[in-house]
Amino acid sequence: MTYKAPFTKWLELDSGKFKDPALIQTRHLSDLKGLFSDSEAETSLLKDNPLIYEVYLAYDGDFQEGQLGYSTTLIYPGKVGNEYFFTKGHYHAKGDRAELYYCIKGEGYLLMQTPEGEVNAQHMTAGAGAYVPPYWGHRTVNTGKDVFVFLAVYPADAGYDYGSIAEKGFASILVENNGKTELVENPKYRA
Amino acid sequence: MTYKAPFTKWLELDSGKFKDPALIQTRHLSDLKGLFSDSEAETSLLKDNPLIYEVYLAYDGDFQEGQLGYSTTLIYPGKVGNEYFFTKGHYHAKGDRAELYYCIKGEGYLLMQTPEGEVNAQHMTAGAGAYVPPYWGHRTVNTGKDVFVFLAVYPADAGYDYGSIAEKGFASILVENNGKTELVENPKYRA
Repeated sequence: MTYKAPFTKWLELDSGKFKDPALIQTRHLSDLKGLFSDSEAETSLLKDNPLIYEVYLAYDGDFQEGQLGYSTTLIYPGKVGNEYFFTKGHYHAKGDRAELYYCIKGEGYLLMQTPEGEVNAQHMTAGAGAYVPPYWGHRTVNTGKDVFVFLAVYPADAGYDYGSIAEKGFASILVENNGKTELVENPKYRA
Repeated sequence: MTYKAPFTKWLELDSGKFKDPALIQTRHLSDLKGLFSDSEAETSLLKDNPLIYEVYLAYDGDFQEGQLGYSTTLIYPGKVGNEYFFTKGHYHAKGDRAELYYCIKGEGYLLMQTPEGEVNAQHMTAGAGAYVPPYWGHRTVNTGKDVFVFLAVYPADAGYDYGSIAEKGFASILVENNGKTELVENPKYRA
């Protein structure tokens, strides 16, 4: 029998980036067009097209059952209108696959929802090990003043379903209101 | 449909222990009796029966396919003779299940071997994301002067096979030789 060789990917602790990543995904505002609740603020900010987040994929596990993928995500601090920068968000194509988020630094939320629109938000700072149970769509949001970095570990055969989020949006959003972070209903959500 | 509720387990960054763990496993030398290569040194040290390692199991994922388990392991610094403190080590009962080790602090090795006795050792310090591919037995070893702490994430249905290691031992061991860490053949290995 031939065995896959063990390996190590090293995280740069200062930056939160994996060295020698398998893939880097870079998402500017234009890649998230239409997802923020304040369309006017979004259009205005598109002129600058800020970098919203980056994913440093250490390894994607050959996509085979039993293997794991892992990556870090860096969400930069900022807002579109009063809504904090976030990741696109997705469900897993294989809905029964869970995911673990371990926060390296910064502050934010793991925002989740079921296909029926039930919402759950887990607060994360360094040391938080937040569990995405099977079937929950998930997005992460930087509600802090610095970059928000977390390690994600997931079954390599989980896959992605971005369509449901792109079509319906998230039921709830995280906004700044009088200097405080609030979870409120998304006026653009299409249940 | 009923969905499992999301949750967060918090790691105490100073200690490396998960707060409110699902389970704590505590392993003293007497729990690893016969596994160290220097039987005389082991017998002598058994009078003190030092704490070798602890596992803080944050969550075990209901053991269902698609879910994940996660934990931190704290291996204390020390040696039995010239061999560094280690974990028992195991294969996964479902051999095709991988595992990810992310080092929080300290220094050590992820020591692996195939059922045929091929050996691989990955050096770990803070920031190392070491991958245990399917079918590799794995043990961790503290070769540093402080506690060695890492986060482990694994498919919840991986299971454990401790019997193979208990029966044959590991083909290689990590020892201190003139102040240096060396990977050498295990005189007690039964191939």
